[in-house]
Amino acid sequence: MLSNEMTKRLKIMYPIIQAPMAGGVTTTELVAAVSCAGGLGMIGAGYMNAEQMRNQIREVKQLTSKPIGINLFVPTVFDISADAIKASNQLLNPVRKELGLPPKEFIETTSYQDLIEVFHEQIQVVIEENIPVCSFTFGIPSHEVMEKLKRENIILIGTATTVEEAIENEKRGIDIIVVQGSEAGGHRGSFLQEVEEPVGLMSLIPQAADQVSIPIIAAGGIMDGRGLKAAICLGAKGVQMGTAFLTCEESGALKVHKEAILQGKESETVLTRSFSGKQARGIINKFIREMKGHEKEWPDFPIQHMLTQDIRKTSGEKGEADYLSLWCGQSPRLAKSITAEELVKKTISETEGIKI
Amino acid sequence: MLSNEMTKRLKIMYPIIQAPMAGGVTTTELVAAVSCAGGLGMIGAGYMNAEQMRNQIREVKQLTSKPIGINLFVPTVFDISADAIKASNQLLNPVRKELGLPPKEFIETTSYQDLIEVFHEQIQVVIEENIPVCSFTFGIPSHEVMEKLKRENIILIGTATTVEEAIENEKRGIDIIVVQGSEAGGHRGSFLQEVEEPVGLMSLIPQAADQVSIPIIAAGGIMDGRGLKAAICLGAKGVQMGTAFLTCEESGALKVHKEAILQGKESETVLTRSFSGKQARGIINKFIREMKGHEKEWPDFPIQHMLTQDIRKTSGEKGEADYLSLWCGQSPRLAKSITAEELVKKTISETEGIKI
Repeated sequence: MLSNEMTKRLKIMYPIIQAPMAGGVTTTELVAAVSCAGGLGMIGAGYMNAEQMRNQIREVKQLTSKPIGINLFVPTVFDISADAIKASNQLLNPVRKELGLPPKEFIETTSYQDLIEVFHEQIQVVIEENIPVCSFTFGIPSHEVMEKLKRENIILIGTATTVEEAIENEKRGIDIIVVQGSEAGGHRGSFLQEVEEPVGLMSLIPQAADQVSIPIIAAGGIMDGRGLKAAICLGAKGVQMGTAFLTCEESGALKVHKEAILQGKESETVLTRSFSGKQARGIINKFIREMKGHEKEWPDFPIQHMLTQDIRKTSGEKGEADYLSLWCGQSPRLAKSITAEELVKKTISETEGIKI
Repeated sequence: MLSNEMTKRLKIMYPIIQAPMAGGVTTTELVAAVSCAGGLGMIGAGYMNAEQMRNQIREVKQLTSKPIGINLFVPTVFDISADAIKASNQLLNPVRKELGLPPKEFIETTSYQDLIEVFHEQIQVVIEENIPVCSFTFGIPSHEVMEKLKRENIILIGTATTVEEAIENEKRGIDIIVVQGSEAGGHRGSFLQEVEEPVGLMSLIPQAADQVSIPIIAAGGIMDGRGLKAAICLGAKGVQMGTAFLTCEESGALKVHKEAILQGKESETVLTRSFSGKQARGIINKFIREMKGHEKEWPDFPIQHMLTQDIRKTSGEKGEADYLSLWCGQSPRLAKSITAEELVKKTISETEGIKI
């Protein structure tokens, strides 16, 4: 019942895509389990270098021969200002002190050129490893990169947070669009303009579906069969679920992160730039609260991400939620601690029970 | 197919409720047309006195014998500070000047006690005029008021923007809850706590549905059969549509307001306190932009609403959108200039066409 042009194209049984959450969440076990269960497992490779990517891809291939996908961050131009880095460190040093970390004044930063180089190496790995599906966040790759991937028949998935971004994705030759609603946890994929307020899926899916003809995957707050069925009613061909897979047994998210979601409420998440320099939705904690007044001062992504790295790492090692980025969508009450296979099966079986 | 316990209880054919938009939008013609078409027409009586309410109710009764509903604002405690009023007027006076209006220093204000009195008179009219359905925004009435209405078998509809508010509505004896998503245009119905970020319907409906057993009506960004069907998949029993009815021919919204919506985009609305002192979603215009930095300084609702009255009125009379509250949900691209009957029929017929 749920198979359609998109599932056929992706060669998957169910229209359920596991969101490519970067930063260690999408373990080999998680990705393989989702694909084995009939969905599309995806490696969140945004922060990986080519070698790390290749290693994980090969590990996943040991566990499944089903299609998998990979997600890359399209490099975006960013400012590097020594003053901004110093100012950010001044705000972060009291936190470092509390965590027993040495203060910092400057840090070694990456450059846009570095990111472009890594991105091209990542693309090379996608091709060499015959990855059938490649998705992008924070933008659309150049015409050259798109053509290179298309020659290999790799299916390209873009990300859109507005109707304009959906149209732009289609125009540039993207095959399928993930439409990210305001409900979504983690980073906003916005790239065309700074959106004043993100748009909810109830509004975004039908308005996007009216303007593009390529398939739409809905992302944001979808955790079960009710969300899947609703997304399809609104005009999507499938869903991408992040938070729902994050609390699964196979996910690499820290225990303290999983616990925060499992105990979370729908009104306890906010968008913040404080962790990375780009807006992302997570559960409100001490760090977000303390840094709230500085949202507009932080250096650009990925500089701020690099600046908070020691803080997040140490907070995580101590098992403390205070200074960790607790990415989470707006449906934490629906999160479960089950296996990825159980989540896929439960979601599909729930769609049968909905009568309208 | 779409009839259920809620439509049976409300004695309506279709689970479509016309949002009770206050301030002149819900004309007699609009309310009657919706009820005649099989939905529930509702009078937005929030800003009316008892006499105005009674007059409109009697007018509607001339046009239809079908059930109609009425919405009241539950009075909330508010601060009145001469300093805050003076400060607000200082910010508003340049706008008044631009519109050719005299500057103001103070204004005559209403008191909480006044509002309570009006509210009790409104309740009396609801009872005397045999209105079968009464909905509430900004809170839940006192036990005494609830009991009084229940003795008359009046069906009580509450408003919730979080799961906690939905639970509170049920606990206090409300019969049906309107669950208002972040997508919704106009005023936020929040009353239990200041919500940091409003929750999208994709998240809010299922999480609320899991926690309450009374029927849920979904509100926010729903404009057509896709939205109605999706809301039902998520666990709602029906929908309340505001913006979709606002652009209908029978609506009393100003032409300039209707035009702004019909030309609007999904990413062009924001929440603002600048017009009324309470958060409400509208299309970004000159007033919202100019007043953006003062969001936290405004006097409470309804004081700020009274302070901006001359500005909104004059802007409207001049047919200018600059200083008008252009309330609108996040789906303006789906708005149509049709009759209310056409909207109800179109919405219902569209649900038939959705295959999942």
